[in-house]
Amino acid sequence: MQRLSLLLTDQYQLTMAYGYWKCGKAEQNAVFQLSFRSLPFHGNYAIACGLADVIEYLNNFSFHKDELEYLTSLKTSNDEPFFADGFIEYLRVLKFTCDIEAVLEGTLVFAKEPMLRIKGPLLQCQLLETILLNLIGFSTLAATKASRVCRAAVSDPVIEFGLRRAQGQDGGLTASRAAYIGGCVATSNVLAGKIYNIPIKGTMAHSWVMSFSTELEAFRVFADIIQDQTILVLDTYQTAQGIENAIMVAKELQDQGRGLYGVRLDSGDLVAISKKVRDRLDQAGFPNVKIFASGGLDEYSIQKIKSCGAPIDGWGVGTKVVTCDDQPSLNVIYKLTAVQSVSGEWEYKAKISDETEKRTLPGIQQVRRFYQNGHLLYDVIYDEKLGISNHNVQQDLGAEDLLQPIFRQGKLVYQQPLIQEIQSHAQKQVDGFLALANTKQKFSVKIDEKLTTALHK
Amino acid sequence: MQRLSLLLTDQYQLTMAYGYWKCGKAEQNAVFQLSFRSLPFHGNYAIACGLADVIEYLNNFSFHKDELEYLTSLKTSNDEPFFADGFIEYLRVLKFTCDIEAVLEGTLVFAKEPMLRIKGPLLQCQLLETILLNLIGFSTLAATKASRVCRAAVSDPVIEFGLRRAQGQDGGLTASRAAYIGGCVATSNVLAGKIYNIPIKGTMAHSWVMSFSTELEAFRVFADIIQDQTILVLDTYQTAQGIENAIMVAKELQDQGRGLYGVRLDSGDLVAISKKVRDRLDQAGFPNVKIFASGGLDEYSIQKIKSCGAPIDGWGVGTKVVTCDDQPSLNVIYKLTAVQSVSGEWEYKAKISDETEKRTLPGIQQVRRFYQNGHLLYDVIYDEKLGISNHNVQQDLGAEDLLQPIFRQGKLVYQQPLIQEIQSHAQKQVDGFLALANTKQKFSVKIDEKLTTALHK
Repeated sequence: MQRLSLLLTDQYQLTMAYGYWKCGKAEQNAVFQLSFRSLPFHGNYAIACGLADVIEYLNNFSFHKDELEYLTSLKTSNDEPFFADGFIEYLRVLKFTCDIEAVLEGTLVFAKEPMLRIKGPLLQCQLLETILLNLIGFSTLAATKASRVCRAAVSDPVIEFGLRRAQGQDGGLTASRAAYIGGCVATSNVLAGKIYNIPIKGTMAHSWVMSFSTELEAFRVFADIIQDQTILVLDTYQTAQGIENAIMVAKELQDQGRGLYGVRLDSGDLVAISKKVRDRLDQAGFPNVKIFASGGLDEYSIQKIKSCGAPIDGWGVGTKVVTCDDQPSLNVIYKLTAVQSVSGEWEYKAKISDETEKRTLPGIQQVRRFYQNGHLLYDVIYDEKLGISNHNVQQDLGAEDLLQPIFRQGKLVYQQPLIQEIQSHAQKQVDGFLALANTKQKFSVKIDEKLTTALHK
Repeated sequence: MQRLSLLLTDQYQLTMAYGYWKCGKAEQNAVFQLSFRSLPFHGNYAIACGLADVIEYLNNFSFHKDELEYLTSLKTSNDEPFFADGFIEYLRVLKFTCDIEAVLEGTLVFAKEPMLRIKGPLLQCQLLETILLNLIGFSTLAATKASRVCRAAVSDPVIEFGLRRAQGQDGGLTASRAAYIGGCVATSNVLAGKIYNIPIKGTMAHSWVMSFSTELEAFRVFADIIQDQTILVLDTYQTAQGIENAIMVAKELQDQGRGLYGVRLDSGDLVAISKKVRDRLDQAGFPNVKIFASGGLDEYSIQKIKSCGAPIDGWGVGTKVVTCDDQPSLNVIYKLTAVQSVSGEWEYKAKISDETEKRTLPGIQQVRRFYQNGHLLYDVIYDEKLGISNHNVQQDLGAEDLLQPIFRQGKLVYQQPLIQEIQSHAQKQVDGFLALANTKQKFSVKIDEKLTTALHK
């Protein structure tokens, strides 16, 4: 991927950084935590995603000459330099030196849990707010959406092809990567295939069919050229005719000792049409030709179509995964939770807004997840200094701390897994979560009493 | 901006391109048109945007070595090369040679009108589908959303600061540029300021306040350092106290011969709170201190808050503009509308799907817009070969064709305006559209009868 500019931030981060620098607080140690306020899509879990982009960003953390020149050029309304030269010089030599702990990609996360915690100089922590929210928010949202869609499709393969509806190049890349982590088997996005080493898939579009004199000719030529898993799209004109043309081509391929792999339906009443198409294929002696469906699908429509017994073998999802249509943003926040005094003491900080929903938990937090026989049982948010109360009383519970060390004093200390491993990990976490739900128990996130007590002091 | 990869496409475009190449149709001339099916946000206009990105993309249209290597590495399920070597070689020397006409940025566009028309070799037109939809769809959506928000704010300035909720770097850049074109006066996105030469703005966040022992100290230090248009955020703890602290600082600044520029409210009942804050500021002798509001705002909430008489002077909008929350995708389509036979005749093409909504108009279309006294009167979609019927019977009507030449045989023939000119043009178009609505007339898009007749032949 491209280098992300250090100017990819909100102006107020630079204004505040300048303020910290001027008043001598730039190097004061602070802790910020990134979390989200509520679960997206009225759902009951989210899948952490986006850490890989954060790592790449921080590994390339330094201001470039043209970026500093731009900052130098900024003026106040009185046409004076906005930033003092000394500050620009400070940025020129600035290196990333913070500690970062994060929930690993593919791990389930819940509202109010810290997904990422950063400890280091206040100025650096402040500068990173916007980019961390940007990189983690959308990835987590899209991975979660994809997971929901894949669950609705049960064991059918789901392919993501939403690039055309994404926000530009890295919007599309981020969505394709997140969708794969969330459970999609492939993407249509060729660049995502190249960069992330994930499978790419593609069939034919209506324009192929329209560019020929007849649909039958278009199918014949395509099947002749694309001999690998040939899929014909049936609804350029009328699906009822489209399936007959596809069957004709399937017979011709059979005579050549080949087979038609599948057909795709991209519009109309997918339940009724897929049943008719299945019947015609079976009658014609092609029970193995698969039916793929696409066209504005999401978890709700897939579930509904499946519950009506539609004989669909695979799904293409685009717009609604890539835009996260029903909730296109995750309410991620990044809040100061502690500052270190000159004496080295940590002072805990909380935003105590008029709006209860906007209040934040102070401290230097960690999340411990408890498991039983592979089921996710519950999480406990606790403070690292105060420690965790005695939760693990039952002998048979497994537990792990979710925030793992990623950077230590600015150096990457985490070895990134393969994307296929992240996908498997996500699947295992979702299975472990659903297994608990199957026992009619409800997963819960508890706040450790030591932390609660500290809050009310 | 970064170079966009030529692999930023759906795999099926490459599959079809390969098919065209193999069956000898690669160089057959075709016409594709880009339009959207319905207006977004239940609105009555959209603002064309994204052409600048298209121009940059096409000016850099050539496959890079690593991209071709990736395509060469792709295998069928039998582990044979997916693409023949001759095709990779064809791509290696491929140059963009098409004609493109497009509706200029900032111009109003309506459903089913061609926003972009491309004429040239079928293979090239096909390869460009995904990127054209990607670059124009989201930009147009975001510019339209921003225009709606700015109209709701009437003459109050609106600042866009949604970067943290955008899809990555170019999602954020695209949104900030589009929002400016749609009428925002500034963005928080520093990189967008640098790249697009648009004003950037920023105040302070809650974390600034929290990093100090008291809110009052935080305000004092900030006002001391940031002397240019100082704005204090009031709701880190309790707004009722926040305003008192701000007033204290305003008095101190007054003693120094300076003034506090404004305060920002970021949560709560903005109507009630802004009235209280205004009262306190006025009582304290600061009628000129401005009140800015932010926090999940869109055109609906701004309109409602204003209608309740809230004394708010400026607005910050983020999430709901950048994600286009209530409709995060524009249903843009890119359809083959004509192909040229060997004899040079143009054969018109239409997708005649089972779903009426998905049918497309054939031809090589143009849109003529009729004006009267600066009002937008109506548009006529007509075919360039068939010509337009005699619409301009009234002497006092002005008219212009919306699709303007951008590329001729692959060469850019269009001189791009400044972004400020695009913003003004959009404002003028919106004003001309609203002026008609004020006369209780309804703007309409007509399809020329010659084109309709051709369709039904």
